[in-house]
This record gives sequence, C-alpha cells and structure tokens, in this order.
Amino acid sequence: MTEAVRFGVSIHPELQRKFDALIEAKGYQNRSEAIRDLIRKFLVEQEWQDDEEIIGTVTIVYNHHTRELPDTVTEFQHQHYRSILSSLHVHLDVENCLEVIVLRGRAGEIRRFADRLIGTKGIKHGTLSGTTTGSKLP
Amino acid sequence: MTEAVRFGVSIHPELQRKFDALIEAKGYQNRSEAIRDLIRKFLVEQEWQDDEEIIGTVTIVYNHHTRELPDTVTEFQHQHYRSILSSLHVHLDVENCLEVIVLRGRAGEIRRFADRLIGTKGIKHGTLSGTTTGSKLP
Amino acid sequence: MTEAVRFGVSIHPELQRKFDALIEAKGYQNRSEAIRDLIRKFLVEQEWQDDEEIIGTVTIVYNHHTRELPDTVTEFQHQHYRSILSSLHVHLDVENCLEVIVLRGRAGEIRRFADRLIGTKGIKHGTLSGTTTGSKLP
Amino acid sequence: MTEAVRFGVSIHPELQRKFDALIEAKGYQNRSEAIRDLIRKFLVEQEWQDDEEIIGTVTIVYNHHTRELPDTVTEFQHQHYRSILSSLHVHLDVENCLEVIVLRGRAGEIRRFADRLIGTKGIKHGTLSGTTTGSKLP
Repeated sequence: MTEAVRFGVSIHPELQRKFDALIEAKGYQNRSEAIRDLIRKFLVEQEWQDDEEIIGTVTIVYNHHTRELPDTVTEFQHQHYRSILSSLHVHLDVENCLEVIVLRGRAGEIRRFADRLIGTKGIKHGTLSGTTTGSKLP
Repeated sequence: MTEAVRFGVSIHPELQRKFDALIEAKGYQNRSEAIRDLIRKFLVEQEWQDDEEIIGTVTIVYNHHTRELPDTVTEFQHQHYRSILSSLHVHLDVENCLEVIVLRGRAGEIRRFADRLIGTKGIKHGTLSGTTTGSKLP
Repeated sequence: MTEAVRFGVSIHPELQRKFDALIEAKGYQNRSEAIRDLIRKFLVEQEWQDDEEIIGTVTIVYNHHTRELPDTVTEFQHQHYRSILSSLHVHLDVENCLEVIVLRGRAGEIRRFADRLIGTKGIKHGTLSGTTTGSKLP
Repeated sequence: MTEAVRFGVSIHPELQRKFDALIEAKGYQNRSEAIRDLIRKFLVEQEWQDDEEIIGTVTIVYNHHTRELPDTVTEFQHQHYRSILSSLHVHLDVENCLEVIVLRGRAGEIRRFADRLIGTKGIKHGTLSGTTTGSKLP
C-alpha cells in the first residue's frame, strides 16, 4: 500500500473548533478522516457531472399484486443485465416490495435506466443514488 | 382493490404539450401515471421532513484490504440489526467492495446511522437515499 | 391569454386524500395549482440537465473586511456583465455581506461562473439555485 | 483579526493528486481555501438541519399580467417584513418577472415562508436556497 502524504491546512481557530464539534457529533475519529471524506464526496459529485463510469443504486418500492408488474420489473432488468451488478429484494409487508438494483456505467446511461424503471406503471417510489467504482478513488 | 377516482387538472395547453413531451422521453405510458409519481415523490419528501417511519438505503464503497474495516462494518450492522432489513454485498474489483444496507425507522435515526457508518475510517464514499415503506402510499 | 385546457387524472382515493392534506398544509388553493407546480418543477429540472438557457441565482456571504475581496467580487462581476441581469447587496452585520447575483445563460456556463465565484478566497459560503426564464413555461 | 492556526491532513498521494486537479479546475488558489470551503459547506448543511438562525434566498418567476398576482406577492412580503432583509426585482421579458427575496430566521420558518409563496397561484417556479448569517462562520 502506498504511503500517505501530509499537507497543512491554514484555518481560523473558530472554524476549526466548529469543525471539530461537528465531526465528533458525526462520529469521525479525527480531522484527516473527515477531510478525506469531504474531498471524496467533492470528487464523486464531479464524476457524476462529467459522465464518467460510476455506480448507481436504484431503489424502487412497489405493490407486487399490481398486475404484471413483477414480471415487467424482472424483464426490464434482464434487458439491461450487462449494466446490473446485483439486486436485492425485500418483502416490506404483505403487499409492498422493495428492490435495490446496483448498476455500473456512464452517469447518463444510469440516469436513463433509472428514469425508465421508476416511470414504470405501478412503481410507487423510486430513487437513484450515485457513488463511485472506487477504483479511481484511494 | 379500491376503485380509482378521477380529478380534473386545468392547465395551459403549452404547459401540457411540454409535459407530454417530457413524460414520453422518460418512458411514462400516460399522464395519470406521471402525475401519480410526482405526487408520491412530493409526499415522500414530506415524510422525510416530518421524521415519519421511512426506508433508507445506505450505499458504501470501501477497500476490504483496509485493516479491520470489514469486521467493523459487520459489527456495526449487528449492533443495529433491529433497524436493518437486509444488505447486499458486491465485489467491485480485487480490492473494492460495495455494500447496500436497507433500513427501516424514523428519518432522524436513519440519518444518524448513515452518518456514523459513512464516517467510519476507511469508507471511501457513502450515500443515503430515502424512500417509503409503501404502506401509507397507494 | 390562451384558454386553459383540462385533463383527467386517475388516482387511488387514499393517494388523493394524502395529496389534498399536503397541499392544504403547503397553502395551495386547489389541486390544479399544485399539479401545475409539480409539472413545472419537473420541467425546470430537465432544462438544467439539458443545458438550455436558464436563470441562476448565486448567493454569496463574505466578510467585507477581507483584504481586496470586495474589489475582486466587483471586478469578477464586471468581467461577466453580459450574463448578469442584476445583483443585490445586503449588510448582514458589521462585517458580513450577502450578495445575490442573478444570471442568464446556458446551465453549464452558469455553473462554471458560480464555481469560480464561490471558490474565490474569502467567500464564506455560496450557493447556486436554478430557475427558468419563464418564457418557455406557461 | 484572529491569527490562523494550522492542522495537518494525512492523505493518499493519488487522492491528493485528484483533489489538486479538481480545485484547479474550479479556480481555487490553494488547498487550504478549498478545504475551508468544504468545511463551511458541511457546517451550513448542519445549521439547516438543526433549525438554527440562517439566511434563505427565495427566487420566484411569474407573469406579472396574472390578475392580482403582483399585489398578492407584495402583500405577502409586507406581512413578513420582519423576516425579509431585502428583495430584488428583475424584468425578464415583456411578461415574466423574477423576484429574489432574502430572509433571515429559523430554517423551519423560512421553509414555511417559501412553501407558501411558491404555492401562490400564478407563480411559475420557485426555489429556496440556504446560506448562513456568516456570524458563526469565520
């Protein structure tokens, strides 16, 4: 593993104090860890704007009694199997299902996939959440 | 199943035309389906603001070679097993892992859980995405 | 003024009931007005994704005692005077200023303008908020 | 003015390289300035979640030919004059107006103000953007 390097941050003492209070509340062990997180979040937002290869998590909630919906959802996923890494199904109650689908691809493609799936008749709610492949992000 | 009811929407013809073009591009089959989706999205945003019982999907990416991290992530989940419905693990490449954790609880609790987990040393990136239990949302 | 047209929305009675409760809480006068708002919000989000001509509001907060900052902020705006429609200055307290800058242009340009301005040394906080020129949105 | 202090950040060299490339693209002069910005953004997000005293910028776009709307907008602002610091009006074209209203108050109040105003019949689009009073944020 590559050795870490260090750089110094010049900061107003009051800003440092407030930062320390917030990172303690959030459960960070030290400033470096919190700073690295802020930096990585900043980089991932840019990856999504630049249409790079990213990972998207699509979460949908639907009633599995809706006629043909489970088949439609399954069929749709098979058509896009090359982009889908994995999916997870949770039975929320007697009628509601939650499905999480993890996709890898360009940001634009993943957005289109999510739009289409979330727009399918009978899907109650859907979200797309973007993360990174990790490979470009130490 | 309860019968659907109907209500009328009064709209400028040009706004309707633009709406029709966008929903076609997004793959909606008809206006009612798109309107129901906009309404449900509007309601779910409010559920999250009102700290109601919701479903959250936490996605984290990390290098599983990071010392003790896989154990920490597993241990953390066990401490919160009552809120966790399920989780999914994807091996992204030789070192990077993605884990999706589906939680049920009050919006505030789920946010705190996500903050703590994402703040754990070694997690490269994390997101929290909010959806609904579906039970209050036909 | 063009006459409004009407279309019908088919909806589950319970979803309609929850929608009615929320729009009342938000102060809408009737369903049509709330639906038109949801539709316009949906269209404006798309205008921003499609890099169309839009309006952006940049809000910055800074300490006007910071050496050279007020001049830098003014100079920067003059360099971009063609995109800036207007700006507003508020004296928040003895040292803090708030400035709101209203810009018209392609979404990408406005984002770059905002990034540069918000990244200027001494700006404490900045946001970019996107809206529409209104001309394509009845 | 208080002297700045320094703290060190331990970071993987590749993460530092990517961070440097992004902050150059965004126009930051050095790492400290970019880090302080990330920290302040992180703090302001928390101020909004904690319902502290904040500054909100509400931007609305409307057709001033809409019957009674300009009066309604003005009247509404007078009822809330205590929270409104200033407002700015831009004539976008022959019929469209943009108005920016700067408010100071608790996050919850400001959200309610924005909901009500944006929900007023005839407003085409509205956004609420949150920033800080600056007084707690060096």
